[in-house]
Amino acid sequence: MNQQYPSALLEKAVGEFSKLPGIGRKTAMRLVLHLLRQDQPTVEAFGNSIITLKREVKYCKVCHNISDTEICQICANPQRDASLVCVVENIRDVMAVEATQQYKGLYHVLGGVISPMDGVGPSDLQIDSLVHRVGEGGVREVVLALSTTMEGDTTNFYIYRKLEKMDVKLSVIARGISVGDELEYADEVTLGRSIVNRTPFTGTV
Amino acid sequence: MNQQYPSALLEKAVGEFSKLPGIGRKTAMRLVLHLLRQDQPTVEAFGNSIITLKREVKYCKVCHNISDTEICQICANPQRDASLVCVVENIRDVMAVEATQQYKGLYHVLGGVISPMDGVGPSDLQIDSLVHRVGEGGVREVVLALSTTMEGDTTNFYIYRKLEKMDVKLSVIARGISVGDELEYADEVTLGRSIVNRTPFTGTV
Repeated sequence: MNQQYPSALLEKAVGEFSKLPGIGRKTAMRLVLHLLRQDQPTVEAFGNSIITLKREVKYCKVCHNISDTEICQICANPQRDASLVCVVENIRDVMAVEATQQYKGLYHVLGGVISPMDGVGPSDLQIDSLVHRVGEGGVREVVLALSTTMEGDTTNFYIYRKLEKMDVKLSVIARGISVGDELEYADEVTLGRSIVNRTPFTGTV
Repeated sequence: MNQQYPSALLEKAVGEFSKLPGIGRKTAMRLVLHLLRQDQPTVEAFGNSIITLKREVKYCKVCHNISDTEICQICANPQRDASLVCVVENIRDVMAVEATQQYKGLYHVLGGVISPMDGVGPSDLQIDSLVHRVGEGGVREVVLALSTTMEGDTTNFYIYRKLEKMDVKLSVIARGISVGDELEYADEVTLGRSIVNRTPFTGTV
């Protein structure tokens, strides 16, 4: 359907919204018209929230997590175990691990995983800063918590090769049967790996 | 999952995005992090597009369609047949009819349909202004193009009662078999109505 917009401003707003991932022009139109029905302060609050975030957000100098301050709340918290560093891909993974309330160490946000297909190499990630962080001492264990994909495994191995000569224990989160799953429906690979739980990492999982 | 946001600014932005219809907190997070990966001008363009739209958009004084000017492009176009007025619910319907390229008259955007369940009465809609518009003369035919629902039919009837004493022809868009549908799969009501095509409106369709 070749849409003719009644307003250039409307067309621009719909264009901007439809650039978002998973948002087509029809959904964008619905969202824009929804906002247009709200009052002026609500719309300003919406638009400014993302502009302010982009302008003022910082990334923690230690773990590269999003933060309002130079050092994030987690790294600055003296209650947390600074000798334990969990390596994750992005801040959503930090939030996912935090939500479990099972982890009391710090994080290191890589910013992705090594993926030659997407043009992401080790230098695009915060791997050097992880090595530097471990090299400075005080880190007893690095827990690898990346996606259980080919790219995640590749990144795990790359980090292993970078850290194996250093005095630090490397571990990887357990791959296994999801809580609530029945054994008979689990795939063989997962079931095979479920025997081990947070095993010392020796290059392969 | 009780999420703890690493940044108050991030939480605010996610909160604003998750107010949008059909956008939950997980999707909101995904959208916000997507925008955060864009450069500063891109994010400012996004945020300002909706703020500018809300601040500067006008509604056509004649048909109440969204417009950049006091009188919209359609109403201001001398090529269009000003004696023909198509009554629609909202501007998306204007765009849908425009996209057919089958209509050369003007529009009247009601802003919804009568729906007591949602607290929408005739006074919440641009019905009085339609009656006023017809009363000023020059309108030969009013085409009702509302949703084919109970609320749409109610609104059609309300408008019919308001206009029946006036010197104007009332018609309603044809309800019938969708193009591409096979007759045997059409419901009986639709099939029954498909015999008529844009019939003179006499209170019932």
